[in-house]
Amino acid sequence: MFSNREGPDQLHAGALLTQAWQQIVGCRHAVRQQGVTPIPLLRFDLIEGRSESDVRKIRDITHDVLIETLQVPKRDRYQVVHEHKRSRMIVEDTGLGFVRSDHVLLLQVTSRPRSREMKEAFYRLLVERLAARCGISPDAVIENFVTNADEDWSFGVGWAQFLTGELSTDLQAKARIGSPA
Amino acid sequence: MFSNREGPDQLHAGALLTQAWQQIVGCRHAVRQQGVTPIPLLRFDLIEGRSESDVRKIRDITHDVLIETLQVPKRDRYQVVHEHKRSRMIVEDTGLGFVRSDHVLLLQVTSRPRSREMKEAFYRLLVERLAARCGISPDAVIENFVTNADEDWSFGVGWAQFLTGELSTDLQAKARIGSPA
Amino acid sequence: MFSNREGPDQLHAGALLTQAWQQIVGCRHAVRQQGVTPIPLLRFDLIEGRSESDVRKIRDITHDVLIETLQVPKRDRYQVVHEHKRSRMIVEDTGLGFVRSDHVLLLQVTSRPRSREMKEAFYRLLVERLAARCGISPDAVIENFVTNADEDWSFGVGWAQFLTGELSTDLQAKARIGSPA
Repeated sequence: MFSNREGPDQLHAGALLTQAWQQIVGCRHAVRQQGVTPIPLLRFDLIEGRSESDVRKIRDITHDVLIETLQVPKRDRYQVVHEHKRSRMIVEDTGLGFVRSDHVLLLQVTSRPRSREMKEAFYRLLVERLAARCGISPDAVIENFVTNADEDWSFGVGWAQFLTGELSTDLQAKARIGSPA
Repeated sequence: MFSNREGPDQLHAGALLTQAWQQIVGCRHAVRQQGVTPIPLLRFDLIEGRSESDVRKIRDITHDVLIETLQVPKRDRYQVVHEHKRSRMIVEDTGLGFVRSDHVLLLQVTSRPRSREMKEAFYRLLVERLAARCGISPDAVIENFVTNADEDWSFGVGWAQFLTGELSTDLQAKARIGSPA
Repeated sequence: MFSNREGPDQLHAGALLTQAWQQIVGCRHAVRQQGVTPIPLLRFDLIEGRSESDVRKIRDITHDVLIETLQVPKRDRYQVVHEHKRSRMIVEDTGLGFVRSDHVLLLQVTSRPRSREMKEAFYRLLVERLAARCGISPDAVIENFVTNADEDWSFGVGWAQFLTGELSTDLQAKARIGSPA
């Protein structure tokens, strides 16, 4: 449907540009760090009104905990923060007795498979760090994972980097659990 | 990386705070209601412009339908509403002949596994209730589920409540289908 | 809980309305196009500041690529665009050397299962088209899939159209890979 709007010259230029990009990409070295396995996308849902510095701290602490418990590479950071009006985010307690406040933080992680132990370590350490360093009550933090597969990720340039071997998929990596402080 | 910015006293205070919280948490009673299994996160996508009261009705009706068809506990409510500019939400009809309007409602549920019968009952009853009580055309409602596992949920304080046994995981719970009105 | 606020007449009218809708729905013809299988929900995450026309091009190009590589029906379009402040979307490079800019585009597709080949074709062709027709660097595009099942979709009126047979579930459909331009 786009061919009606673009002439052959434009399309040819586009194809050349794509080729050039692919050559640049082809020169990059594969990243295969020992014992680390990328984990990608984190969605944070928060109620609006937090300061820039608070949001930054939440993001940074979460990424540090990810590195420590799920053994991800340092620059494996894909974070999206959604802020909502108070009336647009309802979080109750499933009868568990949690006191939810306007500081509630809902975190959804989409990732390739991680071990149960890694996930438990992640839940625990994140809550501890957010309490100790950000003053967020452990009652306010809800976390969940959604799992997908190697073939479900392209990190850029249209390649599936787990399939091409550019990224390691070492599932045996052991969780290195940091102390809470 | 945070140890550069915080002294040992602050870290110690944080650790103590965490311990105190964990003691409080440990005193809470486990919630094991007969025949109910929590289902967590609902994301609503709507086009902006609805009244506060309409949004509240949509949320409340959906939660009631969840309780009736998927047998969740009363306070098992985790709802996030995303509102979008008209041009940021495109919903066509897959050739099924639905007339989509600006009242379109897209609902994505992330949950532990539920039976096919439960999901079908949820789809049907939600559409009926939204029509009868909120005037939303059945044509405007799109629903989908994404499934994860017991170990994929922490509802607070960094514990995985399905693994600790604080929450029941009774998959045999039968759907109690309410009448449409 | 709603019965306190609505009288029997209102409820009866609602039930009648629902019945009428169901009759209309029942008359619609099932859509079973040869060799196509619907794929539903696409979430785009972008940094705010793009023009309306750029957003429209991104949406249209992505839908065309979906039709070509994943063999979806023409009107199988369910797109939601989330725009974020710069500080609310952090996208690094997992050490792969990508130069991310403010034009970063994160695409999350929730779909019934598609073959590995189809997904690889989708990743590649989308990046090529966005570069050639929209000037978006292949470095800026991150794509991922989350998979669910037939019973996880209701496209309208509360029916699960893959279960009722209204929608085909032909998984054998071969990817028809378009040339990049």
